[in-house]
Amino acid sequence: MPDRYIDFANSTIGQRLVGALGLPAPTRLERWQAGRLRPVEGALLLGGGPLAAHIASFAQRLTDAVYSYGSEVPGCSSWIPGHGPRLKALVFDASPLEQVDQLKQLREFFQPLLRNLESCAHVVILGRAPQGLRDPFAASAQRALEGFSRSLAKELRNGGTVQLLQVDDDAQDQLEGALRFFLSPKSAYISGQVLHLSACTSRVLDWSRPLAGRKALVTGAARGIGAAIAETLARDGSEIILLDVPQARTDLEALAARLGARSIALDICAEDAARQLVEQLPDGLDVLVHNAGITRDKTLANMTPEFWDAVLAVNLNAPQVLTKALLDSGTLHDHGRVILLASISGIAGNRGQTNYAASKAGLIGLAQAWAPLLGERGISINAVAPGFIETQMTAHIPFALREAGRRMSSLGQGGLPQDVAEAVAWLAQPGSGTVSGQALRVCGQSVLGA
Amino acid sequence: MPDRYIDFANSTIGQRLVGALGLPAPTRLERWQAGRLRPVEGALLLGGGPLAAHIASFAQRLTDAVYSYGSEVPGCSSWIPGHGPRLKALVFDASPLEQVDQLKQLREFFQPLLRNLESCAHVVILGRAPQGLRDPFAASAQRALEGFSRSLAKELRNGGTVQLLQVDDDAQDQLEGALRFFLSPKSAYISGQVLHLSACTSRVLDWSRPLAGRKALVTGAARGIGAAIAETLARDGSEIILLDVPQARTDLEALAARLGARSIALDICAEDAARQLVEQLPDGLDVLVHNAGITRDKTLANMTPEFWDAVLAVNLNAPQVLTKALLDSGTLHDHGRVILLASISGIAGNRGQTNYAASKAGLIGLAQAWAPLLGERGISINAVAPGFIETQMTAHIPFALREAGRRMSSLGQGGLPQDVAEAVAWLAQPGSGTVSGQALRVCGQSVLGA
Repeated sequence: MPDRYIDFANSTIGQRLVGALGLPAPTRLERWQAGRLRPVEGALLLGGGPLAAHIASFAQRLTDAVYSYGSEVPGCSSWIPGHGPRLKALVFDASPLEQVDQLKQLREFFQPLLRNLESCAHVVILGRAPQGLRDPFAASAQRALEGFSRSLAKELRNGGTVQLLQVDDDAQDQLEGALRFFLSPKSAYISGQVLHLSACTSRVLDWSRPLAGRKALVTGAARGIGAAIAETLARDGSEIILLDVPQARTDLEALAARLGARSIALDICAEDAARQLVEQLPDGLDVLVHNAGITRDKTLANMTPEFWDAVLAVNLNAPQVLTKALLDSGTLHDHGRVILLASISGIAGNRGQTNYAASKAGLIGLAQAWAPLLGERGISINAVAPGFIETQMTAHIPFALREAGRRMSSLGQGGLPQDVAEAVAWLAQPGSGTVSGQALRVCGQSVLGA
Repeated sequence: MPDRYIDFANSTIGQRLVGALGLPAPTRLERWQAGRLRPVEGALLLGGGPLAAHIASFAQRLTDAVYSYGSEVPGCSSWIPGHGPRLKALVFDASPLEQVDQLKQLREFFQPLLRNLESCAHVVILGRAPQGLRDPFAASAQRALEGFSRSLAKELRNGGTVQLLQVDDDAQDQLEGALRFFLSPKSAYISGQVLHLSACTSRVLDWSRPLAGRKALVTGAARGIGAAIAETLARDGSEIILLDVPQARTDLEALAARLGARSIALDICAEDAARQLVEQLPDGLDVLVHNAGITRDKTLANMTPEFWDAVLAVNLNAPQVLTKALLDSGTLHDHGRVILLASISGIAGNRGQTNYAASKAGLIGLAQAWAPLLGERGISINAVAPGFIETQMTAHIPFALREAGRRMSSLGQGGLPQDVAEAVAWLAQPGSGTVSGQALRVCGQSVLGA
């Protein structure tokens, strides 16, 4: 069921009606088109602390129009209010802010810029992880950035997004990869999020094919979000192995043929699934995407044992068992990337989904708990938590609930499978080991949370 | 502006209409009445792991009707489906669950009980903090409890609540205090929350006056939530010192007279406020409640420097400066309790509140960062984050927004100042040092989150 409202709201008549009636006015989001080279098509403005100068050193690779505001940044033209161009991307380095009084720099920096944003502008605020700071007041000031950035994300209009990246000192050399994602349409449907970047020794060699030379396995790949993930990983240069249940073999093989990929028809809950999978991957694996998942919704009062067991087995037990086998057998290479498809239901809980929410919360817990251990081998593990994504599954939700799911977010619309796929593809990059043990929401800043 | 809808929905005609039209049906919540002795007025049912037996050892102090289900618990009658009484309170010890397959015990335990709950029933699930577990699969299973309990909290009707308490081994002796709060109407407006209990050597001596012998300072105490906090701390036996700005002196002195409390008229943002306060508290302090706070809402594009500065100064800087002065001077005694009034805006962010959300997020960060340091002196520091609370402030919100704020929560209504006050009073107890560095939401499980 396509989102016809967004077509209407962006039509000539619709725009007037929506404005006159005060209805939600979702903007048609820009998405990344295959073959595009520059992450930012428009002006990028840098400001704030010393990371702005660091970013300026590679900013010409992001766009050919780089400006600074509020402080001199080498290699950038000064942006002057009332004269500078409209802005497509903003980065403010707030990492030096240690005292409450210094937080006013946020207002001073952003205020003149907010009326000069292009449609679908992307804002990144850089800070520090509060838990890494010794001074409680500095930690408090840095934590304040989170309330600020989530609020600003709720204030932006026209498809704009805001993220807060907490950057460790030894993670600065991974900023390019993070900004190529968060300043570009690859992160179109992500807003109001907070991520922590720590040291990572791997790096992308060719930004036009960041996954070149990597081998990726995607489960549940025959359709929907799984197929979008496979296509996006392939676009980024990865060799792909598609996995789905034997019943989906027709779709799976058609996709495999289209992508020049291998396919494996296997029930991941079968008793010997782990052994079979290891055997079928003699050359090993760099990227493991656990996308396969099912819903069997019932309130707990009406939940059958079968519904409970099936969801926990597919969504949580299989990823645990398979990942362990791939790790123990050495199939998953050092510096590998594990990505678990969770859900905002796993964060906020959801009526009728005690089983599903438990399984998805369990995946987030798995990423958090496993990350420090796998980090010793350079392997990262993260969860991606989609919100309302337009798929066959959500097309079957009753109208009123579907509309609520779409509109109850800062971007006022559902996301596309591609939005989830872009997040997975970014986390799959060699340099994205800078993120581990975290949950990245792809939800348009849905109001739902914990 | 009282919540007339809740009166309507609970009237004879209203109940029929609400049912027929599928409108929200908020239940009138039970609140704690002064003079009440038993936390649970009705049947308490225990089950699950070994903590059930531990709780049974003091459960007779909570209620005179204690049952067990699913496993034998010494001193408890067995509850039999179809025969046992309706239940007012449930505790399930899920702390032994280490594998995905064991999670089905949640369904098995709860399912027969859910149709036998009294109105305003309170459910507590006990688990372990995932970050304290070495086995990633056990951490994953324990993290799954979070998705389960938040979902179950969304499914309960008739004012029921669900919390997940993650209990360290050496925190078991503090369970009575936590259960006296979370199984009683003192936590009427708290649901879907996760708290971690760690070791604490202090304890409550007299449960009818848990704050006897403690001296508490409450800022912003003249009216609203601050006044409710002062009254509740006084009810629980604390000596009270009320603080508010000089302009509020009339209200402040009237409340002081009523509670037999001292009052201090002081602008907490004054240059010498810290020195003045220390001088006025020669006998020291056990409980420090930073309730004073202001809003000055504007989108960031329209935010004045004065609005920004005022909110950050009152809400974040003053608590930092005053707490530090009270600590450094030894005014705040060892084993003291610091409670910071935050907001769900500090968690989720809010449109028009970049300043307020930053200040409230900063308070949450302050509690997180300071807790380990203050813990060396036995001092705890926590944030309480109210959602939509019925006060003079929320009475001025436009109708549609006010209705949304009330209904967009699992309990379908706003909370009362007393609900926030009860949370503060619990965290002020000697034994509540078992909780530190955390944010406790008092929001009826508002859908809003991060």
